[in-house]
Amino acid sequence: MKGIDHIGIAVNSIDNALPLYTNIFQMSHVKTEMVESQKVKVAFINANNTKIELLEPISEDSTIQKFLNKKGEGIHHIAFKTEDIYGELENLERTGVQLIDKEPRIGAGGALVAFIHPKGTFGVLYELCQKQ
Amino acid sequence: MKGIDHIGIAVNSIDNALPLYTNIFQMSHVKTEMVESQKVKVAFINANNTKIELLEPISEDSTIQKFLNKKGEGIHHIAFKTEDIYGELENLERTGVQLIDKEPRIGAGGALVAFIHPKGTFGVLYELCQKQ
Repeated sequence: MKGIDHIGIAVNSIDNALPLYTNIFQMSHVKTEMVESQKVKVAFINANNTKIELLEPISEDSTIQKFLNKKGEGIHHIAFKTEDIYGELENLERTGVQLIDKEPRIGAGGALVAFIHPKGTFGVLYELCQKQ
Repeated sequence: MKGIDHIGIAVNSIDNALPLYTNIFQMSHVKTEMVESQKVKVAFINANNTKIELLEPISEDSTIQKFLNKKGEGIHHIAFKTEDIYGELENLERTGVQLIDKEPRIGAGGALVAFIHPKGTFGVLYELCQKQ
């Protein structure tokens, strides 16, 4: 793993949450985009050594909406940066770590992403993220 | 804020969780120490661009034990690095952000730390952390 690419935070409304990061924490908002495959709107925030991604659901059946319904707003996942997502997934499977995605899919920013099941990671939802 | 100093993760047992980070994620374990003031044992893990801190309660009335009882293992907080914790706390208070600690206290690694109340940060428990 090449460090932490971003921390994903589930929010009800990016419009409401973003000023905390830009005005109060003085971080820069890089861009906001729709990730239709995951039914979320994503705001990318530059936190200097890593990024924060605010995730707002755009559909009732979005995973993020389900998370919000169950747990409320808060930290959703941590994404590791990798340059070899296929190799990392193979290694994880070989060591018996349960995966949500055995094959990468396209995530925010066009990256290849895959999630590890939190059952095998002591409750933390980890994502692997490879920029293309 | 000068980036993210660390991500704090609550675990039942550092002994059980640490091998995931060292053997499987191939990160280096920097050290483990007791932080008596917060009634936790803390394992510091180098995640390249930031750190992961595994937090294991050492007392039933530890905040981390209460978190584990309520929510189970998982991400507990995100710590921002600052070089002026007193100034940052003043700024936050001036802008109406609710604080848990109005004055910094001594945290892991001897750093000055203060927590922001998650009510004002869309459900995320943020810490300010200044190395001495």
